[in-house]
Amino acid sequence: LFGSQFVCVGGSPKRMRAFAQFMRRELGLAGAGEEDVADICAGSDRYAMYRAGPVLSISHGMGIPSISIMLHELIKLLHHAKCRDVTIIRIGTSGGLGIEAGSVVITDTAVDSSFQPRFEQVVLDDVVVRSTELDKALAEELLACSRDIADFPTLIGHTMCTYDFYEGQGRLDGALCSFSSEKKLEYLRRAYDAGVRNIEMESTAFAALCGLCGLKGESCHFHLL
Amino acid sequence: LFGSQFVCVGGSPKRMRAFAQFMRRELGLAGAGEEDVADICAGSDRYAMYRAGPVLSISHGMGIPSISIMLHELIKLLHHAKCRDVTIIRIGTSGGLGIEAGSVVITDTAVDSSFQPRFEQVVLDDVVVRSTELDKALAEELLACSRDIADFPTLIGHTMCTYDFYEGQGRLDGALCSFSSEKKLEYLRRAYDAGVRNIEMESTAFAALCGLCGLKGESCHFHLL
Repeated sequence: LFGSQFVCVGGSPKRMRAFAQFMRRELGLAGAGEEDVADICAGSDRYAMYRAGPVLSISHGMGIPSISIMLHELIKLLHHAKCRDVTIIRIGTSGGLGIEAGSVVITDTAVDSSFQPRFEQVVLDDVVVRSTELDKALAEELLACSRDIADFPTLIGHTMCTYDFYEGQGRLDGALCSFSSEKKLEYLRRAYDAGVRNIEMESTAFAALCGLCGLKGESCHFHLL
Repeated sequence: LFGSQFVCVGGSPKRMRAFAQFMRRELGLAGAGEEDVADICAGSDRYAMYRAGPVLSISHGMGIPSISIMLHELIKLLHHAKCRDVTIIRIGTSGGLGIEAGSVVITDTAVDSSFQPRFEQVVLDDVVVRSTELDKALAEELLACSRDIADFPTLIGHTMCTYDFYEGQGRLDGALCSFSSEKKLEYLRRAYDAGVRNIEMESTAFAALCGLCGLKGESCHFHLL
């Protein structure tokens, strides 16, 4: 891990492996073939980690508890490998709110399900409130990069992070649903009015932990549908 | 999935594959070889699903958000496959509290980080409190089965479920730690006094969702160290 300068994280191990191969090709590095990219964490099922030159590509599974485990362990590894000024970018998928399908949302602030820029971390049985600000300069830099790519409408906005995919994000097609379509739409409209442009399940914990541990963090989400 | 009567779930896809192979051997079914057990959900990275006769073996990743996604989708599948009277057992690892290493804890009640038998589910931006009772008769049945196996001390107790592995479970070796060893021990002692015998990251959501959807659920955890 010595010399790692960028860390890209996303939910799926297969996708993060494909991303490492893509980065090897982009950086002109040898060994971009299917067989050449080895999982550094192959002994564990917690997450997969691949390296492409100065870039680490790591999966984090789904949800705040899962990404938190990976981030704690990654931050310790980077510390012991004496990596400095590391930039970490979450490249995940999300559900968009009032934006075009295929858009990329770069997060300025991660907000919770009440649209507040905070992450409530339970420490033993105390609740500690942490800030979820991300690196604004990095967000602008990424937005500038996006201008070179015509195919993906890209914008900066708030990202809402929930603990649940079905009942927490207003889906009507889970195993349980206790709200009406009207109540769902009213909630999503309030979220939009509060500046939310997409919804996912990791950004508040990601922002809080990166901020506290001095990693320059940003979160870019691809809105699938 | 037609004819599935038992569902066993655990965090790791590799472990749940090994469990499906074990069940095939135990049930005298053909195809217990490495190559014979196919992942029914191979197209997705969300979870892996294997079948061994009437038993489904499914991975759920780490933490409440991750297991909730799998359970919503599993419960819908079982409904459409017309499976009735399904028993679901979480077979995971956990951290033990004041018990012998290698013990198995069968959960009577899942409790949150304040030792309360409840799961707070965020539905849109409301918090709904749900019961986390598990099936007591099933717990006793599993305890009776354990008497045939001499090697594993087995007990029934409360299982505490947290949202975080490091700061939430009193670990001093995360990337961040804001409490002392004394404060950690004082918290764990209070948990023990409240009846908690082990700690993991899925049981409250598991118990709540199984209870609401009419699945007979139980949770057995193997305490590693």
